Formats: sequence, structure tokens, C-alpha cells
Amino acid sequence: MKKVAVIMGSDSDLDVVSKGIAVLDELGIKYEVHIYSAHRTPEEAGKFCSEAKEKGFGVIIAAAGMAAHLAGAAAAQTLLPIIGIPIESGRLGGLDALLSTVQMPSGIPVATVAVNGAKNAALLAAQILAVSDDNLYLKLKNLREKDKNAVLEKNSKIEKQFNGHKTDC
Amino acid sequence: MKKVAVIMGSDSDLDVVSKGIAVLDELGIKYEVHIYSAHRTPEEAGKFCSEAKEKGFGVIIAAAGMAAHLAGAAAAQTLLPIIGIPIESGRLGGLDALLSTVQMPSGIPVATVAVNGAKNAALLAAQILAVSDDNLYLKLKNLREKDKNAVLEKNSKIEKQFNGHKTDC
Amino acid sequence: MKKVAVIMGSDSDLDVVSKGIAVLDELGIKYEVHIYSAHRTPEEAGKFCSEAKEKGFGVIIAAAGMAAHLAGAAAAQTLLPIIGIPIESGRLGGLDALLSTVQMPSGIPVATVAVNGAKNAALLAAQILAVSDDNLYLKLKNLREKDKNAVLEKNSKIEKQFNGHKTDC
Amino acid sequence: MKKVAVIMGSDSDLDVVSKGIAVLDELGIKYEVHIYSAHRTPEEAGKFCSEAKEKGFGVIIAAAGMAAHLAGAAAAQTLLPIIGIPIESGRLGGLDALLSTVQMPSGIPVATVAVNGAKNAALLAAQILAVSDDNLYLKLKNLREKDKNAVLEKNSKIEKQFNGHKTDC
Amino acid sequence: MKKVAVIMGSDSDLDVVSKGIAVLDELGIKYEVHIYSAHRTPEEAGKFCSEAKEKGFGVIIAAAGMAAHLAGAAAAQTLLPIIGIPIESGRLGGLDALLSTVQMPSGIPVATVAVNGAKNAALLAAQILAVSDDNLYLKLKNLREKDKNAVLEKNSKIEKQFNGHKTDC
Amino acid sequence: MKKVAVIMGSDSDLDVVSKGIAVLDELGIKYEVHIYSAHRTPEEAGKFCSEAKEKGFGVIIAAAGMAAHLAGAAAAQTLLPIIGIPIESGRLGGLDALLSTVQMPSGIPVATVAVNGAKNAALLAAQILAVSDDNLYLKLKNLREKDKNAVLEKNSKIEKQFNGHKTDC
Amino acid sequence: MKKVAVIMGSDSDLDVVSKGIAVLDELGIKYEVHIYSAHRTPEEAGKFCSEAKEKGFGVIIAAAGMAAHLAGAAAAQTLLPIIGIPIESGRLGGLDALLSTVQMPSGIPVATVAVNGAKNAALLAAQILAVSDDNLYLKLKNLREKDKNAVLEKNSKIEKQFNGHKTDC
Amino acid sequence: MKKVAVIMGSDSDLDVVSKGIAVLDELGIKYEVHIYSAHRTPEEAGKFCSEAKEKGFGVIIAAAGMAAHLAGAAAAQTLLPIIGIPIESGRLGGLDALLSTVQMPSGIPVATVAVNGAKNAALLAAQILAVSDDNLYLKLKNLREKDKNAVLEKNSKIEKQFNGHKTDC
Repeated sequence: MKKVAVIMGSDSDLDVVSKGIAVLDELGIKYEVHIYSAHRTPEEAGKFCSEAKEKGFGVIIAAAGMAAHLAGAAAAQTLLPIIGIPIESGRLGGLDALLSTVQMPSGIPVATVAVNGAKNAALLAAQILAVSDDNLYLKLKNLREKDKNAVLEKNSKIEKQFNGHKTDC
Repeated sequence: MKKVAVIMGSDSDLDVVSKGIAVLDELGIKYEVHIYSAHRTPEEAGKFCSEAKEKGFGVIIAAAGMAAHLAGAAAAQTLLPIIGIPIESGRLGGLDALLSTVQMPSGIPVATVAVNGAKNAALLAAQILAVSDDNLYLKLKNLREKDKNAVLEKNSKIEKQFNGHKTDC
Repeated sequence: MKKVAVIMGSDSDLDVVSKGIAVLDELGIKYEVHIYSAHRTPEEAGKFCSEAKEKGFGVIIAAAGMAAHLAGAAAAQTLLPIIGIPIESGRLGGLDALLSTVQMPSGIPVATVAVNGAKNAALLAAQILAVSDDNLYLKLKNLREKDKNAVLEKNSKIEKQFNGHKTDC
Repeated sequence: MKKVAVIMGSDSDLDVVSKGIAVLDELGIKYEVHIYSAHRTPEEAGKFCSEAKEKGFGVIIAAAGMAAHLAGAAAAQTLLPIIGIPIESGRLGGLDALLSTVQMPSGIPVATVAVNGAKNAALLAAQILAVSDDNLYLKLKNLREKDKNAVLEKNSKIEKQFNGHKTDC
Repeated sequence: MKKVAVIMGSDSDLDVVSKGIAVLDELGIKYEVHIYSAHRTPEEAGKFCSEAKEKGFGVIIAAAGMAAHLAGAAAAQTLLPIIGIPIESGRLGGLDALLSTVQMPSGIPVATVAVNGAKNAALLAAQILAVSDDNLYLKLKNLREKDKNAVLEKNSKIEKQFNGHKTDC
Repeated sequence: MKKVAVIMGSDSDLDVVSKGIAVLDELGIKYEVHIYSAHRTPEEAGKFCSEAKEKGFGVIIAAAGMAAHLAGAAAAQTLLPIIGIPIESGRLGGLDALLSTVQMPSGIPVATVAVNGAKNAALLAAQILAVSDDNLYLKLKNLREKDKNAVLEKNSKIEKQFNGHKTDC
Repeated sequence: MKKVAVIMGSDSDLDVVSKGIAVLDELGIKYEVHIYSAHRTPEEAGKFCSEAKEKGFGVIIAAAGMAAHLAGAAAAQTLLPIIGIPIESGRLGGLDALLSTVQMPSGIPVATVAVNGAKNAALLAAQILAVSDDNLYLKLKNLREKDKNAVLEKNSKIEKQFNGHKTDC
Repeated sequence: MKKVAVIMGSDSDLDVVSKGIAVLDELGIKYEVHIYSAHRTPEEAGKFCSEAKEKGFGVIIAAAGMAAHLAGAAAAQTLLPIIGIPIESGRLGGLDALLSTVQMPSGIPVATVAVNGAKNAALLAAQILAVSDDNLYLKLKNLREKDKNAVLEKNSKIEKQFNGHKTDC
């Protein structure tokens, strides 16, 4: 199975990103985590991304805030799918990072998830790898089933809490 | 090679979406095009997406405007990667469709591209399929090379246009 | 009297939603509360809404945050009036949920209230049921009268507080 | 059957609003159309709304642009459900009218539809009346079925247009 | 000298509004403070405003949050200048109140100040009264001089703090 | 009667501003029109404003677009009431000019009207002068009455247009 | 005198950018114009910027739209001052390009001008070079003087146009 | 070497601005710090800026919040490069200050950095001075190298933290 690269622009992004790493762990996906800044270590970021395919990576997740260029810079260096996580950085509610990540010009797509959406980035990476990996697809199905059951269970609880009003249907 | 499904919420989206279809044609990717509305034909949309994997699809591209739910509704019915294209519909500049597509809750990711970014959606679909298809990866590399050369050529033209000022470096 | 269904996408919405439930209690309106996610339990959500009319519901209140699809998904499954509460989820000030809820495409309306406007959602549900229920209309009139008197009372207090400056008109 | 009142702040709103009136006609709903301005004819607007219930109205649709106060002013004068249509007026994309209509304070709800969403306002009015009118509910079901079939038909056309790529599933 | 009326939509606005009242006190301007809600006590609000001129008021300051209609509703009932203070209410950063207050339709102006700008609303009221009151104009000049001196004094302090770098110019 | 100064940052603003000048003409208010740029002719702008009171002006209307500083710069030079008209300049819908005009810091208020709201700026200027001019107040009343009657007349027309549905109330 | 480099992400930006080039011509500043895309020709863009200083450039102007990374990418490769022009590209009013250009992370500044502000970018470049070039400073002073006189002349015209109302001050 | 002037509209801006002053100290750049308000001390602000060049300043950094006019007012008084720092002031996320600073009209540029971007403002000032000061350029290079090494070091740490998954490439 191909690996997932998780890169982020700053170590302050790790709090958010770690929720995605946990998902990769849970699904048994191999990954690497790096801090590469599109602006402070552009060569390192570029080199890593341009060599990522031959090093066995299948997808790159890139997290950055403010004028978040990291995902776009990664996308410019490889044809692996790039997943962008816009990181909220206190001001402007993450709208700056969202627009900087998603509004890519024609030719260089970035698969953007929600502001701070690290868990979904990891799931999307897994779904991409699962296109050609039925075993991983099955794991994803189980995870989603588990998620669904968690919602159903919460529903049961809330129905009981309000059951003075619950009808018998 | 797995097929790409292109679904859109309304036939008024076709003008935008057709720029992505042209890319799929150029890359020799098999695809289907459908109009499914998350709200007006929810069962048809749901059935199509839940059966998409077994019918040989590898990726679904979903385009919709306003409170754009189509991509998210598709994502809820399958574990194939879903690519969402927010369609601008005249008012609010497409911000409504962008936020409705990208801000998905935890567990159900949508890979969102730019407002009206149909060409990038098709390229992203191709990049996803190319994770396990080296032949397609090569085609994508050639396409990007062609894009790059187009920019370089435009650069040459513009350098000539302003060459009274061009240095000889 | 018909019942009101209160559905929400996540149990984290309950803090907001419970302010609306209190209004239903105060008005003696029968209701049910459920957690249904447009994305994690789409079948359960769809089934509930499509059967809601025959089970005696007159209105459905749907609360969700981020790319808030729940109200729209409900509206796609029934012709009962759907009231959407956009839930603020920390980032983007609830604008994402507001636009995802209110900007519904032609044919499938959602009656949207303010961000986190659970109390108003409940009042609106009551007003809808009161169109054919004069007794409930009267209760609503009394409640509004009470609200009005609360404002008048606060006004009296504030006039006294500043009465060194209060004229005798 | 109760009537629907359609009020708007200016005759310039009629272009948008008339799409909703056509829906009322199609459903055989009785209605009145008035121009009442929350600011230029506040007494007339207030009088009309406060007497609306006793004159046989069941719902009021209020359309206005900019700092759109008409729906809220109507809601302050009656306990009939008020449906607000935010009208785009060229600048700020209708965001001003949307926020002025939907962000109502606790106690006085306005059921807000999309910017310029006159058709949906009329459908919502019909759905509200249909809560206690099974005949109208049936008409709405037929209308939605017709809408659905229109989508399916467009889907058939587009599938044929792209049928070199259509699979036989 | 004419009086200033300070009205607000809710007693929760008082924290903000009191900063403006302090300015009126400082300038020796007579005023009244009232809570009138455009939606919960529309008659009282309307009556007050329509009688304000004959009761000796020269200006009305109206503070409200969310879909802030109070200033506009006041403006519809009198030709006294109305000053609107948009109140931030936690979500959407006060943008809702700002647009609801400032984007008034042709014919009914509201003099809008900054979000939560109560102090400036009071100063503006004073400036309006001072158009025909040279004594008040003088007081305003003194107040501004005082403000200016406060800035100059802070400047002196900061220049000292950084004086290792201060040049002697 | 005191005069009104109408200043604007650029002659491109005149199209919008002239709608306000027409109102001043209609009300018989004396005025001057000038182009002063806060940035290109700051001394001229400053000199004019600081001398405006002694030259017989009672109010200054300042129109500007983009980072619209003119109204604020005027307000810094005089204690006459300054009315700011944010001018839309094609991009960002006038939001830049609106925020630059209305969000003034404590101590220096600008009475802001709607984006491109020149007519309301003139009416507001008149209302300010009318605080101490009962004759002008009467003219304003007549103008508003005329406006009101125009709305009522349009209402009559529209009621006739839809009179198949008009009830006899 | 050092040269100015003008780079842009696409030849579609030239319409806007050429207004800045005209200013450089007018001031007799030497410059080069290039099309470099941060995403399609990242190596060329990077190489140019990293060598710019030694090739005699003093400032780089970078224009780009959407998720405008060009200015930031340039800033990452050199310590010459980078001036960013956010280009409006039809949707979202240029807000995407503005935030992508201005919200740079700590350590890598971009001197951002207004959306489509090419003329100001050129003037800013000239002002930067003029810090150590008194001759250029003088030219800039003359240009500004010319600008100022143009405003004064327009003012004279407009004063004449409205001179029935012009006082003799 | 020319000096840098750091001016701010209020002493409440010092918390943010001091991060930029620290950078000037670190680079050994001479500077002055002043509080000048565009609105409360316009003459002082104007005088300082118009004399700045002859007093040996090469760049002016201007920080202000809300309708942030300080940078633009400075730019109107000198042809030194002006760097604007939009200061967030709690409401509207600093968007008001950003647009008020960056959207300058043609002829009067302000080099705008990110909201609260004081550190980058100082670096930009240094980069501008370094255009003709190779020693300072070198210091900037060292500082950036240091920044880069800090990122690389953090990367090493994070790679170790996740090294169970780190490949040996």
C-alpha cells in the first residue's frame, strides 16, 4: 500500500493535524509527518513533493494557515493528489486560508477540505488509496459504520431523554 | 481503468462542467454524465452513488450551486472519493456554493475545488485514478508539460513585446 | 394537534436546540426529538422525514452546522414545512451554516431562521400549526404579550435608572 | 382555504416576486398583492398585517431589499407565519437583505428563503397552508413530481448527448 | 437646548450604550433613555418617535443588534435625524447589525456609526445639536482638544519608552 | 439657513452624488460642490473643512470609494456633522468603502449612509439643518408625504393588476 | 538605477498590469516583464527571483489572481521587496487574491496593494527605489504634483458647473 | 543608514507593534516610535510625515485599526514608502482595517501587510532599506537562514516524534 505524506507549514498546526494522523493510525495506513514551509523552506518542500511518488507516497496532505500556499506549492511539484487543510489562525476565521487553498488556478488542483478539517483530510486520503485497495475500502466501510452507529446510539439516548414526548412509532 | 462519474444538480451547470469533460476526453478517461439533484431526485442520486463502485466507477465529480448539497449527499452514499465543484449562480459570488461544499462535517469528506473549477476537478479525478495507473500518470505529466510550455511561450511573446526594456540575462 | 419533529445533526447541537424545545413545552405542543445526520445516517433521516406526515407531524425543525444539509435533505423527502436552524460551529461565525441552509434551489424551500435561532424556530413551528388552530394562536398571542410586557418592564426600570434626566412627558 | 398575502417594499421588486405569484396561480391559491414599505408607508403596512388574520389570510410573504425590514415589521404585527424574501439590489450581492431578514431577534421569527427566492417563498406558503389542507398537499406532491420528472428528462437528454461514454447499467 | 433620545432594542445593549450616555452627561446635554423594541413593542417605539419632535427632542440615537431594525423604524416615524448604533451580538461580528442599519432605502436615512460605536453616536448627536448652538460647539471643541492632548501625552510617554532610539528632531 | 458642502474624492463619483444634489435643489438648500481628495489634495480638503463653519456651512457631505478616507479626514478637521457616502467602485461591492467610512475610531464620528446612498445623504443633511429650522422641517415632511403617496399610488396600480385576486377589504 | 521586475501569473493579467508598466515608462525606470506562474512554471519563477538581485533588480512586482501565490513564492526566493497585486478574476470580487497575497506568514512579507492596483504597485516600486535615488524622488514629486493639479482642475470645473450655488469664499 | 519611523494610531496598538520593533532592534536599524492619530492629531501626523525624509527617515510603518486611515494619511504627505499594518480590533476580524489600509486609490500606494503583521512590516522596511545597503541585506539573509533552520529543526523533532512511521528516505 502506498504511503500518505502529512506536511504542515508550522508546528503550531500539529494540534489540528494530529486528529488526522490518528485516523491514519486507526486505518493502518503508513505515513510520514513533516514540517515544510512553502515560504521558509521552499526547496525542502519542493524536493520532498517532487520525489514523493518515487518514494512510495500515494497522496500528500498539506496543512497551512493565513495565505496558505503549502498545498498549492506541493501540487505544483507533483501529480500525486494533494489534499489541502486550511488552518484557522485566529483572525478572519480561516477564510484567508480557505480561499488561498481552494481557489487554485486551472491546471493545478488541490482537493480542499473544511477549515481545520484534518480528520476528513485523512479519510479522503484513505478513500483515494482505497480506489485500488479493496481491503482498505472495507476498513473505511467499517469505520463509517462505526460512525453511523455512534450517531444512532446518541439518537437512542436523546429519544429516551425526551421520551415523555416520544410517540410509539 | 476505472470510470469517472460526472453528476450535476441542474442542466444549467453544463456550461461550466463541460470544461472538465473535455479534460477527461483529452486524457482518454471513460466517464458518464448525469443530472441528479440532491433535492429533486434524491433517490436517483443516492442509488447511483451507492452502486457506483460496483459499476466500475473510481471517482465521482459533483457540481452544484447555491446551497450545494449534491457532493455531500454523494459522499454520504459511497466511500469513493467525491470531488465537489461549487457553481457560481450569480448572487453572492459562489461563496454560498463554496461553503456548502467544502465545510463538510467530520467523517464525510468532499474534495473541493475552486468555484466553477471544472477543469481542475477533472484533473484531480485523473490524479486520483493515476495513483494506481502509471500510464495515466504519464499522460498527466505530458498534459502539465504542455501547460507549462504554453506559459513559457506566452512569456516569450510578452518578453518580446516589452523587449525595449528586456535585459540580456 | 399535529406534532413537531425536532431533528439535529449532532448531539453537540442540543445546547442550542433545547431553547426551542422549551418553547414547545411552554406552548403545550407535542414533539419528538431525534439525532439524524444528513451524512452519517442519511437513510434514517430520509425515512423519518418521508413518513413524518403520516405519523402525525405537521412541521419539522432541522438544526445543523457547517455545510448544513440536514434541513435541505429533510425538505427533499416531504412536503411538510421544514424550518432550518443554522448552527454556529466556532469558525466562520455560522455563515457557512446559514448559506448552506437558506440558499436552497428552486422547488425545495427551507424556512430559515437566524444563526442559533432555536427559540424562533419553535415559535415559527407554532405559528405554522396555529394557522388552523385558534387555540394555539391564542397561546402564541399570550406569549408575545408576555414578551412585550417584559420589554416594557425593563423599559420602566431603565427609565427610573436614568430619571434624573427623564422628562415628565 | 386561507389566502396568501404577497407584499413588497417597492414596485422594482415585482420582477422577482412575480415568479412566486405564478406558483400561487398554478396551485390555485387565493392571494393579494400589495406594495407596502416598512419605511415609507409603515402605518399601511402595519394595519394590513395586524388585520390580515381576520381578513382570511393564512400566510404573508414579504419581499424587500437592502436593509430589508418589511418581513420583520410584518412579523411584529401578527402571529401569522411571515415568509421573507431578501431581494438583491445590485450591491453587496443581497447579503445585506439576507442578514436583515433572517437574523431576527428572539420572539419574532421570519421564515427566510434564498436571496430572490420568490418561487420557494410561494411553495413554502403553500406547504404551510397544506398542513391542514390535504387537497393542497396533493397538488404540491404533483408539482414536485412534475419537477422531478423535468430533472429526469433533462438527465435522459444529457445521457444521450454523452452516450458514447454511457455504460449500459 | 433640544434633548437627545437614546433608545435601544434590549437591556442587554445597555453595556455598550452607556458609554454614549456618559458623553451626553459630560457635555451637559439633556436626554432620555428608553428600551423600545422594533418588534416586541412596535407601537410604543412608533409613538415615541412620532411625538419626539414636539416633546423637545432634536436627535434620536437608536441601538440594536442582529437584524437591527430599530433605527430604521424610528426614521420612518419622524424627520428628526436618527443615529443608528449597530450592536455586535456575538455571531457574524456585528456585520448583520451594521448592514441592517446602514443600508436604508432611498427616502429614509439613518446616520450610522461603527459597530458598538456608542461614544461616537453621542458625539454625533451633540455635533448635530451644535449646528445651531455655539455654546455646545465650544464644549465639543474642548472635548476634542482634551482627546487630542490625551493622544499627545501618550505619544510623549511612548517616545520616552523608546528614547534610546529617539532622534532629537 | 446654513449651507451644505458636498465634497467628493473624484469626479467619477459625480454620477452617484448628483442624485443627492438634486434633493438639495428640490428643498431649496444652498450648497457648494467640490472635489477634494483626502490623499491627492489633503491640504485643500483640510483647509476647506476647518474653515467650513465660519464660511456658513452647517453640514458636510463627503463621498469617496475604495479605502474611503475623505469623510473621516473631514471629520478630523471640524466639529460640523460629517455625512459619509461610501461609493461602490466595481470591486468588493463597496464593502471596502463602507467599512472605511463607518468604522471610525472613538472621538471622530462620521454619519454613514448606504453604499451609493447620495439621496439619503442629502435628506439627512436637510434633517440635521431642520433641527433648528421649522420651515425646512415642513418641506421635508411634504417630501416624505410625496414619497409616501408615490408608494401608495404604485400599490393601487399593482392591486389593480392583480385584482382578479383582490378581496374587497 | 536598479531595475524593476514585473511578473504575472497569466497573460490575462496584462490588461491590468499594463497600467503599472505605463507608470514605470513615465518615470524612466528600467524594467522587465515576464509571465511566471507559481504553479505551472515554479522552477522558472523561483530561478528568476533568486537571481534577481544579482541581475540588477531592486524590486519585484508580482500580479496574480484567485489563490494568488506568485508574490509569496517570489518573496520566499529573495530578500528584495516584493509588491503583490491581487488580480480580480470575476468571482468573489478579488477577495480570494487579496487574502492570498496579503495574509503572508511571519518572516516573508509581501507589500500588497489594492485589488487590480497596478498603477500603485509601480508607484510603490518607484518610491522604494527613490529611497536612495533623489532624482527619482523628484520625478515622483512632480508626478504627484501633476496628479494633484489634475484634481484641482477637475474641482474648478465642477465648481463652475454648480456655480449658481458657489459662494465667493 | 536611513531610519524607520513607526507610528501607530493608539497606544493600544503597541502590543502588536512591539513585535515589529523587536525585529528592527535585532537588525540594528535605527528607528523612532510615535503615536499619531489620523483623526485626533492630524496636524502632528501630517507634519511628521511631510518632514520625515529630510529628518533622515527612509520608510514609515503605520499601524491602525477599524477605519484605519493612518497609513493612507501618511502616504498623502510624503513619497517615502509607507507600510500599513491593519490592526484587528475585536470586531469584524480586522477586515475593516485591512480594506481601509490596502484599498488605496490610484496615486497614493500603501504597502500593506497581514492583519497584525507587525513583524513582517519591520522585515519589509528592512528589505526596502537593504535595496541600497548590502550590509543590511546580509543581515536579512542571516535572519531568514535562522528562521529556516528553526523550521528545519522543528521538522526534525516532529519526524522523530512520528518516527515509527518515518521511512528511511
